[in-house]
Amino acid sequence: MKRLLIANRGEIAVRIIRAANDLGIETVAVVSEADRNAAHALLADQVVPIGPAPATKSYLVADAILAAAKETGADAVHPGYGFLSERASFAAAVADAGLTFVGPEASVIEQMGDKVRARQVAQAAGVPTVPGTPGGVSDVAEAVAAASEIGYPIMLKAAAGGGGRGIRVVANEAELKVAFPQASGEAASAFGDGQMYLERFVRAARHVEVQVLGDGSETVHVFERECSLQRRRQKVVEEAPSPGIDERIRTGMTSAAVRLCKEVGYRSAGTCEFLVDDDTGEFFFIEMNTRIQVEHPVTELITGIDLVAEQLRIAAGEPLRFRQSDVTKRGHAVEFRVCAEDPERNFLPGPGKIGDVRLPGGPWVRTDTWLAPGSQVPPFYDSLVAKVIVWGDDRTTALRRAKRALSELVVEGVPTTTTLLIELLGQQWFADGAFTTGTLEEWLTQRAEAGA
Amino acid sequence: MKRLLIANRGEIAVRIIRAANDLGIETVAVVSEADRNAAHALLADQVVPIGPAPATKSYLVADAILAAAKETGADAVHPGYGFLSERASFAAAVADAGLTFVGPEASVIEQMGDKVRARQVAQAAGVPTVPGTPGGVSDVAEAVAAASEIGYPIMLKAAAGGGGRGIRVVANEAELKVAFPQASGEAASAFGDGQMYLERFVRAARHVEVQVLGDGSETVHVFERECSLQRRRQKVVEEAPSPGIDERIRTGMTSAAVRLCKEVGYRSAGTCEFLVDDDTGEFFFIEMNTRIQVEHPVTELITGIDLVAEQLRIAAGEPLRFRQSDVTKRGHAVEFRVCAEDPERNFLPGPGKIGDVRLPGGPWVRTDTWLAPGSQVPPFYDSLVAKVIVWGDDRTTALRRAKRALSELVVEGVPTTTTLLIELLGQQWFADGAFTTGTLEEWLTQRAEAGA
Repeated sequence: MKRLLIANRGEIAVRIIRAANDLGIETVAVVSEADRNAAHALLADQVVPIGPAPATKSYLVADAILAAAKETGADAVHPGYGFLSERASFAAAVADAGLTFVGPEASVIEQMGDKVRARQVAQAAGVPTVPGTPGGVSDVAEAVAAASEIGYPIMLKAAAGGGGRGIRVVANEAELKVAFPQASGEAASAFGDGQMYLERFVRAARHVEVQVLGDGSETVHVFERECSLQRRRQKVVEEAPSPGIDERIRTGMTSAAVRLCKEVGYRSAGTCEFLVDDDTGEFFFIEMNTRIQVEHPVTELITGIDLVAEQLRIAAGEPLRFRQSDVTKRGHAVEFRVCAEDPERNFLPGPGKIGDVRLPGGPWVRTDTWLAPGSQVPPFYDSLVAKVIVWGDDRTTALRRAKRALSELVVEGVPTTTTLLIELLGQQWFADGAFTTGTLEEWLTQRAEAGA
Repeated sequence: MKRLLIANRGEIAVRIIRAANDLGIETVAVVSEADRNAAHALLADQVVPIGPAPATKSYLVADAILAAAKETGADAVHPGYGFLSERASFAAAVADAGLTFVGPEASVIEQMGDKVRARQVAQAAGVPTVPGTPGGVSDVAEAVAAASEIGYPIMLKAAAGGGGRGIRVVANEAELKVAFPQASGEAASAFGDGQMYLERFVRAARHVEVQVLGDGSETVHVFERECSLQRRRQKVVEEAPSPGIDERIRTGMTSAAVRLCKEVGYRSAGTCEFLVDDDTGEFFFIEMNTRIQVEHPVTELITGIDLVAEQLRIAAGEPLRFRQSDVTKRGHAVEFRVCAEDPERNFLPGPGKIGDVRLPGGPWVRTDTWLAPGSQVPPFYDSLVAKVIVWGDDRTTALRRAKRALSELVVEGVPTTTTLLIELLGQQWFADGAFTTGTLEEWLTQRAEAGA
């Protein structure tokens, strides 16, 4: 691999350019018209304009990106996250053009991107998935039998429904017997189909994911990340290790992830997402992301493994450079996503021209960003402007350092979520690591009500 | 420890403020008139002006610093490096004022600051020192006898001389017999004293130092740092581990450093400096620094130990938090000192007003600096403006990352040594780790001659 085209923008494009530089690989940036002076354009060895904003006219146009690769003599394409990163057709087109796609084969992206097929792979690999009926159930007796196998509480979902409509939770058989005919009747009148799926309902769930690296024959896990702090299903703060699982769950989950990836001969970096029942300690595979994740740095900081560099090495055909026993962790890392949004105005995005910028620095603080004084936050993209990532020899030290680092961050000209993140650091439940996927939104709601 | 006064300026003051913040300790900065808007003033919780530049009228005035501590209710003083950091009388005055001095006791500073006494401590602890005569030698026969014990090559130094005058190197007894009378005669006429010291001459020496931490009863080493790349006895690039010593030397040197520190019941962070004979692998204790070193971050990056935080904990009376077996290293770290000097004009310092500043960032790059857009480089102090420190899983990766990081650094308005450091990274002898204390100056001389 001599010249890498980065089919992305923002902080992840900068991150990938740096990894390529560290490996002595030349870089090609593609830019939309809105990104002509963006950091990834300034840092890359070559820059190719590929069309106007929004992304549908540039970063999502596979043909324009392949033409840029051809024009610049790039021999590989890194898709980053988002945009085309999990589109199997793009991976196939890159390969068909005789270039190296930095990620798994198109067939694996397709297989793992389909939730039903991914679930089948998990089951074949003996990886637990959320217990549920394989298909729709249409009568109460059948539902009661299935429920006793699945275990309560049970969530009822219209088989033909979507968007959360028609969902009910029942705590026991008596409730099910009452709720099923009602829900089924509603589904029949709404969707013309009264069949219902039954699925275990996890009241208090943690979102924990396992990072894996595979070269097609060897597979290792690189421990887990705790990603429960979410707002509207977007992760806000991530950390490694997870403060909410014990060694038994960790071992079970990481070995399940490795089995799953071996089942498909996984090649590249990938992430297996799990739901952990905070009451029972059971974990269930939800889905796999066949790309680098936003939150990958916390794993890097505790293990010393450069995940993007490993992606590039694997894509170039090198075998994995380490075995499972070589993968060790030290201390604790936490990532805070700083977005150009106003938390006091319901997280309204605030694009605009950046004034002064001061990034946090010093020991064990890493800032992954494209921000620079005078740069623009275009209105067309994700509002993530910086990731402030800290490491400490324990979680308490990491969180104290996070407070210091976020306090050092200055971004003038646009609103950011920085002060909210500092406020979050002051919450006892956060300090205690006592949270599940609903906790952050509950806190934000209470906070909004208290302020109103 | 609730409130810490930092009796220093520049990057180390910023570093100490950050460590205190990470531990929840309030900070007091003292500033000269030239430093009113300096970074350490902006980051500290309180700021006290202590007089005009130069340092003799402010940072070196112990009374002004103690008055500032009293005025602000500080209960501890961190001296940083340079300035008052190794002045025993200052440590004593801080203690006498009822405050905690962040460093060893005054008596230990005094003992280890005296080269003759430090050498005696080393000998008592069974730590090798450079072989030599204990005092002056006045006749050839005595010199020949002493030399055969010390081992050739031998350096002859006028006992009453100084500043390198009257130094000769002899390779064998025949040369000694010729040189001694000449050198002794010259010394007699120059200094009125013909006595000569004889000392082993190390042709090709590495400067390697061992970091220690002691709490007064327990002592651990935190591995070594390679500091051979020097210009005018100032370190320019430092790294850990040393690429020039093998495991046998490492073990011998680190255990010697621990013995030495145990001998004096050392309490705080300290550094034992050694000369390593690159031909024979012998190592000799030279001196001890009883303070934090400029190059401490490379040790921090390979071990995960926050040396400044440990200094503060030890000063606050806490026992060491780890044993020797807990101190482990991972990968390789290198520090590059960026100075406001013009390497093309014989390293002429270039004070002035800083324009734009872009600090390197991203994975495994740490920049310790006080630089910010619009800040001033005063003409009164050390020209060090930033330390760019990189980590990699091996030395090659660290050096590639260093090239990337130094290329990202932009400092407008004053000359810096950045491009010279990038050029240094391109030298094969540097890539090979094949250098001794004279190598950098030889290269600079060749470079100057080639350019002239």
